Amino acid sequence: MITVATAECFTHANIGLTIHKASSGYENFKYKYLFSDEDLRLIKNVKVLVSMFVPSIYGAEKLLDVKLPEPDYNYKYAKAYSEEKDLEVAKLMANSLKKKLNANIGIGTTAGIGRGAICIVTDYNIYLFTSDVYANLLTFENVKERQKSGIEKGIKKFLEILKKEYF
Amino acid sequence: MITVATAECFTHANIGLTIHKASSGYENFKYKYLFSDEDLRLIKNVKVLVSMFVPSIYGAEKLLDVKLPEPDYNYKYAKAYSEEKDLEVAKLMANSLKKKLNANIGIGTTAGIGRGAICIVTDYNIYLFTSDVYANLLTFENVKERQKSGIEKGIKKFLEILKKEYF
Repeated sequence: MITVATAECFTHANIGLTIHKASSGYENFKYKYLFSDEDLRLIKNVKVLVSMFVPSIYGAEKLLDVKLPEPDYNYKYAKAYSEEKDLEVAKLMANSLKKKLNANIGIGTTAGIGRGAICIVTDYNIYLFTSDVYANLLTFENVKERQKSGIEKGIKKFLEILKKEYF
Repeated sequence: MITVATAECFTHANIGLTIHKASSGYENFKYKYLFSDEDLRLIKNVKVLVSMFVPSIYGAEKLLDVKLPEPDYNYKYAKAYSEEKDLEVAKLMANSLKKKLNANIGIGTTAGIGRGAICIVTDYNIYLFTSDVYANLLTFENVKERQKSGIEKGIKKFLEILKKEYF
């Protein structure tokens, strides 16, 4: 079994939950359209260890044994970064979760002001990319559109990597 | 701010995600019908530190610094207990997450064969209850209905407790 663990912010644990639903054989689930028949077959060999929505720096640091940078903006939920910092933080989250759980694949996501960042760390490589939508967590502008883009790109990239590196 | 952290299995992180959406002022969200106007006002004082979907015993043990009992049944995702054991495990998860993050309120959920269990641990009390639906994780029978019942009962009970103990 290939093990996967996710620590997600702006994607609300949906990347991990979707992989879990596909892998444990749900007939229908929201993002099923992202999976080819081959994907649905291969993903049966994947097991999600945890899929967490972690909006707070404090929670992420405590659970993942990692130190994250100070936020760039003040926000109730405390983790609002610029896009540049989001890229750094997504990588820190993915890496530390992979290490903590000794998983094959760790995924981290976070998004403040900008397109947000998604990081997928495998046993062989690190993939770091943004969503396709610029949004602002502080004003809520485009936040839903960015979330959708992040979830879709995250899952598609994950499936691509899975086939390339593990099968 | 009253801090909340959840470690959820059969409720798929929806209890924590719903509290987060209500607390951070989403206009619309799936379970909004469970909130009165007063609830929507008070919940602005609540902050979700983490809401995790944690299907594996291994993941829960590693992240929450807790030892969980052996599963009663064999299942790919490894955490399939009887109802009696689910009650014990939900409490262990809620307690250890509350402690780990020093949160005001910890919530744990898990469900194998039976109605499943939900535990809410506050600074003052421990509340332990089941969903209203009997289901079987191994055959998928009634699993969706049990999930809905668990999410609804969990959120309703959380709101009740919040008003009674913190306001």
